Amino acid sequence: MSDKGITYKDAGVDIDTGNELAAKYTELMESTFGSGVVRNDGGFGGLFSLKGLSGQCDFFSRFMDEPILVAGADGVGTKLKLAFMLKKHDTVGIDLVAMSVNDVLVQGAQPLFFLDYIGTGRCDKDTMLGLVTGVAEGCRQSGCALLGGETAEMPGFYPEGEYDLAGFAVGIVERAALLDGSQVASGDVILGLASSGLHSNGFSLARKALFEVGGYSIDSTLPELEKPLGETLLEPTRIYVKPVMKALELGSETPLHGLVHITGGGITENTPRILPADCNAEIKLGSWDIPPIFKVIQAAGNIAEEEMYRVFNMGIGMLVICPQASAEKISATLQANGEAARIIGRVTPGNGEVSFV
Amino acid sequence: MSDKGITYKDAGVDIDTGNELAAKYTELMESTFGSGVVRNDGGFGGLFSLKGLSGQCDFFSRFMDEPILVAGADGVGTKLKLAFMLKKHDTVGIDLVAMSVNDVLVQGAQPLFFLDYIGTGRCDKDTMLGLVTGVAEGCRQSGCALLGGETAEMPGFYPEGEYDLAGFAVGIVERAALLDGSQVASGDVILGLASSGLHSNGFSLARKALFEVGGYSIDSTLPELEKPLGETLLEPTRIYVKPVMKALELGSETPLHGLVHITGGGITENTPRILPADCNAEIKLGSWDIPPIFKVIQAAGNIAEEEMYRVFNMGIGMLVICPQASAEKISATLQANGEAARIIGRVTPGNGEVSFV
Repeated sequence: MSDKGITYKDAGVDIDTGNELAAKYTELMESTFGSGVVRNDGGFGGLFSLKGLSGQCDFFSRFMDEPILVAGADGVGTKLKLAFMLKKHDTVGIDLVAMSVNDVLVQGAQPLFFLDYIGTGRCDKDTMLGLVTGVAEGCRQSGCALLGGETAEMPGFYPEGEYDLAGFAVGIVERAALLDGSQVASGDVILGLASSGLHSNGFSLARKALFEVGGYSIDSTLPELEKPLGETLLEPTRIYVKPVMKALELGSETPLHGLVHITGGGITENTPRILPADCNAEIKLGSWDIPPIFKVIQAAGNIAEEEMYRVFNMGIGMLVICPQASAEKISATLQANGEAARIIGRVTPGNGEVSFV
Repeated sequence: MSDKGITYKDAGVDIDTGNELAAKYTELMESTFGSGVVRNDGGFGGLFSLKGLSGQCDFFSRFMDEPILVAGADGVGTKLKLAFMLKKHDTVGIDLVAMSVNDVLVQGAQPLFFLDYIGTGRCDKDTMLGLVTGVAEGCRQSGCALLGGETAEMPGFYPEGEYDLAGFAVGIVERAALLDGSQVASGDVILGLASSGLHSNGFSLARKALFEVGGYSIDSTLPELEKPLGETLLEPTRIYVKPVMKALELGSETPLHGLVHITGGGITENTPRILPADCNAEIKLGSWDIPPIFKVIQAAGNIAEEEMYRVFNMGIGMLVICPQASAEKISATLQANGEAARIIGRVTPGNGEVSFV
């Protein structure tokens, strides 16, 4: 504190570092800008024009009769603890984007833009840049613009080196193309798209099972895992936007009835969110390979099979539900866009539940 | 931990309490729904139709040639510490909404919807309901829909009884009506709208000055303050959306050239965000009454006058910049909608800076 009285910097908030970071954020944001973004440097809000959409994506080349905005907000949860432990901060931003854009996608919507919130005790420049680098990477992977964000420096709020993240995505879909589950019908097949690992759910249980009960550390190497345990857990969440949008663009001759983002609650609790009341989703166990990390967690914590499927994605990050007649073409389209899909179940008459057979 | 192995609940995440809260959140969300909202219970994203806008607000009864979405993200900052100290959680949600919707408003846009993110260590039901009650109140005050949100229960992440909040708002404006400062011209008058207190900025400095240097406590009563110190500080941020939208609706015969949301950086740093490079904003000190709380903070911390104006709003939460000829009608419209405006300065030839005279 100088003899001229205290300043904001004395109180732990460094406006100058914030301004320097803002300049670098701008570069990262620009790496994500598509045709819809309206430049607004220094302005109070991010701007996105709905006029130029047709140039951005084939999906919008048809006239929109009733555009519906689809919005989602999410965080990364306690997966962040792994980033703190590994001091690796440039991939959790991908997780942040993934959680929201995958939610927007499953309504049939093209994500348009994203905004992030970083809360931290002290703005460590490298950490903050790492975070926004990851966010920009996630935005590029999903073809949406990083339109703005907030880095909140809150002295005494978070332990040194820690932070929390929140993300917010907005997408758009023609009302007639909105996926809300009402199209799902008995006889449909269920395709499973592979997850890249735990994604961003179940980390409180995973950390307890592995580090408290199992006695592992982030550096543990296990014969069944290709990378050390910490790195395996931190693998960023897969973003399904581009391949799945290609499948949606196949149009009404190759109908796609429903999409499910497998987040907290697993296949067990997420699938009923789009099941009609008179249908069940019958998931065939053994129809895909459970990635080794889930078996390691289950063994370490002696966790019941049912609980595993209620908490973790178990290797399936997204479900694509379609008529039998569409399955081959949709699978081929996904495959051509880098996403291996396999049939893991079907829709049967029922009462809105998931059954594992 | 049962002998059947550990569960998610053992790891500190209570899905059932979460589900119970979700039902109450839905009621609160419904209290904010206008005509644009498309019901999507249990869905993955909040839905907002752009078709029904004309019914929601006179502003949209004219045809929109190029609709621009305006998005803002913000938090409440260390004002939350005051809520923790006072154990009062039902007003910081108003602050959260205010920070984002006032940012959206100053681009000339009508806020359409809002989403919130709550990060906490343990979902205390009353605290969470208090938070969302405040968020819903803020949304009603600003005429926007609470379209969704995320409550992230992260064991071990935040101290007991603490949390962080992030908020996201999306608004819409016709491109021709977008306010970006380019209309501001020398000769314009600057109207100031009163703040309700500190709003959500400068709390790190305020807490340091009052509680560390000054030795006050939240219960301190001072002759110049109507309420105890803690309550005075926690006063929710004023939301300017409804009265200012009425002023914008006056249309092209009563032009309004610019709006400035006075947040972190005060009048000093926020006003240049919309000033043309050849204009200054000349602010007349003494043209409004500085609320007593700012004088108490300044005296407690022996803070320089210049620093006060660079950190705090000093009693002015928003600037309205308009031609002299519009000033009377705009003032009267604001007044009729509950917002007292006074002339606190004018735009002069200059170089994009604020001068206090």
